[in-house]
Amino acid sequence: MSRWAPNARERLVNAALDLFVENGYEETTVAQIADRAGMNRATFFRHFADKREVLFGGEDVLAELFADGIRAAPPGATVTDCLQVALAAAAVAMTPQLRAAAARRRLVVAANSELQERGLLKHARITRSITAALRERGTDELTARLGAEMAMLAFSVAFERWLKANDDEPFPPVADAALSELHARAAELVLPVAPLSLT
Amino acid sequence: MSRWAPNARERLVNAALDLFVENGYEETTVAQIADRAGMNRATFFRHFADKREVLFGGEDVLAELFADGIRAAPPGATVTDCLQVALAAAAVAMTPQLRAAAARRRLVVAANSELQERGLLKHARITRSITAALRERGTDELTARLGAEMAMLAFSVAFERWLKANDDEPFPPVADAALSELHARAAELVLPVAPLSLT
Repeated sequence: MSRWAPNARERLVNAALDLFVENGYEETTVAQIADRAGMNRATFFRHFADKREVLFGGEDVLAELFADGIRAAPPGATVTDCLQVALAAAAVAMTPQLRAAAARRRLVVAANSELQERGLLKHARITRSITAALRERGTDELTARLGAEMAMLAFSVAFERWLKANDDEPFPPVADAALSELHARAAELVLPVAPLSLT
Repeated sequence: MSRWAPNARERLVNAALDLFVENGYEETTVAQIADRAGMNRATFFRHFADKREVLFGGEDVLAELFADGIRAAPPGATVTDCLQVALAAAAVAMTPQLRAAAARRRLVVAANSELQERGLLKHARITRSITAALRERGTDELTARLGAEMAMLAFSVAFERWLKANDDEPFPPVADAALSELHARAAELVLPVAPLSLT
């Protein structure tokens, strides 16, 4: 395999996932990953800061997509409109490659609590990124934080469903449905029960 | 100082925080913490699994308090009622000692990304614990997850405010206010804008 082949990043991720599943995350070295991908260590470190980042590079992309989506929403958009736009913007990253890698990634992360912690750190950064993008539009702090939590919950639910769906299922309708359901649940949670009228 | 003094756990936490602030988290050893608290390493490990846990033992207590509060709510309680009960139940842990330790703890955690990751893991476990307690009451999965996120957000906001309040400020009213505000924001987020009537 050529050292100059395209898709270096994707090949490194695939090689890493294969090795993590075969030999364990701890036991796998960066040199082995680079070798399996037909590259050298220096190339690995041009793409990833460390071994853990091979598993979580997608989260940084997501944080950008969500925030850019919210920034690009029309001026009159409500917070809910913004969340919908943000989730739709994530579709770019929801590739067949990502889907194919997701099951192996899940196996590896489930077996290692340090990886779970890194995943949560990335998750928290995405939430902060959404909060900041909403704040830039003049949304108050508490609403922005709530909106960001709702977006992340809708995204998580949508992502789980999308992974289980048919291979050609596009992401946006799944995300829309999850956000709508969450919206309906939130409405039930916060609506006061209508008092019985006695007159 | 006697090796058999009461409040061993609290003394270990205080000694650890002092040393972390003075010398840095990485540079401080368990032996030094135990020594500063007038105890030995074995006593330390009877109370904490590792050095990081000194900073996050309170989160495990919180997870229990929240879940027990929800389990003890009356049968007809709504999800929002349950969240209110859960936050009120947390008041037991909101001691003057916790408040006094919080500022130092924040300093230490802010300087170390591994500690932030551990904190997020604990946060995720509390969220799962609330979700599970709501599910036990028959709440559907998505509503339970949303309710848990809302409880954690209300708790975070309330905790930040309580730390800044007067020393004798009790926790429950601060938590109630935060939950009410969050409730109002959620209602604004999900309520459809009433269409203009043209008739």
